[in-house]
Amino acid sequence: MIRTAVFGYGNLGRGTLQSILSAEDMKAVGVFTRREKAEVYAEGGIEIYPANSILSFEADIDVLFICGGSADDLPEYTPKLAEKFNVIDSFDRHSEIKRHFDNVNYAALKGKHLALISAGWDPGIFSAARAMSKAVFPQSEVFTFWGEGVSQGHSEAVRRIKGVRDAIQVTVPKEDAVRAAQNGTLSDGDGKKTHTRRCYVASEEGADRARIENEIRTMPDYFDGYETEIEFVSETELNALFPTMFHGGRVIANAHGAAAAGAELSLTMRSNPDFTGAVLTAYGRAVYRAAKKGRTGAVTVLDIPISDMLPPSADKSALI
Amino acid sequence: MIRTAVFGYGNLGRGTLQSILSAEDMKAVGVFTRREKAEVYAEGGIEIYPANSILSFEADIDVLFICGGSADDLPEYTPKLAEKFNVIDSFDRHSEIKRHFDNVNYAALKGKHLALISAGWDPGIFSAARAMSKAVFPQSEVFTFWGEGVSQGHSEAVRRIKGVRDAIQVTVPKEDAVRAAQNGTLSDGDGKKTHTRRCYVASEEGADRARIENEIRTMPDYFDGYETEIEFVSETELNALFPTMFHGGRVIANAHGAAAAGAELSLTMRSNPDFTGAVLTAYGRAVYRAAKKGRTGAVTVLDIPISDMLPPSADKSALI
Repeated sequence: MIRTAVFGYGNLGRGTLQSILSAEDMKAVGVFTRREKAEVYAEGGIEIYPANSILSFEADIDVLFICGGSADDLPEYTPKLAEKFNVIDSFDRHSEIKRHFDNVNYAALKGKHLALISAGWDPGIFSAARAMSKAVFPQSEVFTFWGEGVSQGHSEAVRRIKGVRDAIQVTVPKEDAVRAAQNGTLSDGDGKKTHTRRCYVASEEGADRARIENEIRTMPDYFDGYETEIEFVSETELNALFPTMFHGGRVIANAHGAAAAGAELSLTMRSNPDFTGAVLTAYGRAVYRAAKKGRTGAVTVLDIPISDMLPPSADKSALI
Repeated sequence: MIRTAVFGYGNLGRGTLQSILSAEDMKAVGVFTRREKAEVYAEGGIEIYPANSILSFEADIDVLFICGGSADDLPEYTPKLAEKFNVIDSFDRHSEIKRHFDNVNYAALKGKHLALISAGWDPGIFSAARAMSKAVFPQSEVFTFWGEGVSQGHSEAVRRIKGVRDAIQVTVPKEDAVRAAQNGTLSDGDGKKTHTRRCYVASEEGADRARIENEIRTMPDYFDGYETEIEFVSETELNALFPTMFHGGRVIANAHGAAAAGAELSLTMRSNPDFTGAVLTAYGRAVYRAAKKGRTGAVTVLDIPISDMLPPSADKSALI
């Protein structure tokens, strides 16, 4: 059995533990959290430990699943922990991946461990689809669409606005852009032009809704430049509308010329963190196997053969 | 530059050479064929050699692309050539892959070479999609649909019937089965129940069409048990209807439970052999790189990390 642990126990940590517990070849030796032990219950009765005790478990953990946020947690923790453990994270800030990779690589090589960064669906499975398209057809156009689904980062950004009690942001790809990509006629795949951002906001009593709307629409990086729709709803309505953090998306590739071809990978998921946890679990298995063969440093999903992700009982010849 | 050669120069060999010639890091040292040199023209003015001279090129070829039929050519040639060269083939008889793998593995290990078998779209990219689904969700259901597209094997089988001048067989997935797979309600994915086989037959003058129809419908393995539609057309109509060997298909996976998810990979291609040639080229690059690192024996697409398939100029961080 591969001895795993989950570091960070929010939605993603819970989804990952669930998936680890259902894997035929893994066990969880513990969950590590910064919260008070009494506040946390881990599925399967798995032991809860304080986050700062992790280093005393060096001999007990084959692969550590780091389940933190990409803004603050992972840039700090993944390099630190990669020096002591084989690790995997879901770092998802595309523009910062190279810097994160370099930091983690340095630490992992120093500690002679293996670290896989940026696993999940995007980055992750969608990265693999984009790279496969470019490998087979170097001249192809590849477009990515996200949604329809709940963006945690954008929802959180709206929640931080004064006067907002709770909020959910749904990312919606524009149908005409999707059709154009499928037909090979989309010329500009800029995400700002191909997606709508739909916000459902429960505001506090007496809050200035016009100001809230304005703060959303002008928020740099998150909403500025996007077609943004804002609807005020009650907290009860919000919870009823979004019982799960559903998400999805597609990667669409087109090659022209004699070998003209089209490829599309589409995903839908009931729960983004549960899906991401399942992806982390499969890549975590590959980290264990590659580390056992002596591989060290940082890697991404592009460096992993699928055979290393398959559970031992999988019948490879039936899949080929 | 990776020094390649193409062994076997039918439709697939031509598609593969085309793709090799457009690769930034490959050159073709020759095309090897059993046909008379005078009958063959290779694109790019690449030299034509007799197939039986291949062994004198041992020092000149880094990766040999074996482009033959899966019925008779590949079971004979891939093991023979894997002893002397790093090779890749597109062996596609699913039920025979394990046996072929074992034969090739034995020869490749003996000759200390690397051999990748069964690359293409199915087996190949679809195998990777099926395996990825099973790795992430071991309990998922995975269904494969082929078509709408021209099946070379089935077209050839019809052409061998007495009184048939030419024929094309188009494989068509049943729409209700595809929808059911997408909705997660397909219980029986048996290909005989989920596909229609449509035959366009140009018969010889005076041929007994009723007998031809009967021979098609009752042909074991190929048509018996399938819903088969047969239409007699003139040779001119046949050529107008099918200027290219277009094909396509989909892999649809569904996971249930808390982490419920759906994934679909769909492909369409203008020319099956040209597309397969592009896939072989990318995996051929990976064969070269893995062999250089000392890997030997037989492998499949499941054993290849995508990063090894990317051309040198590809910007990995942009793809992740």
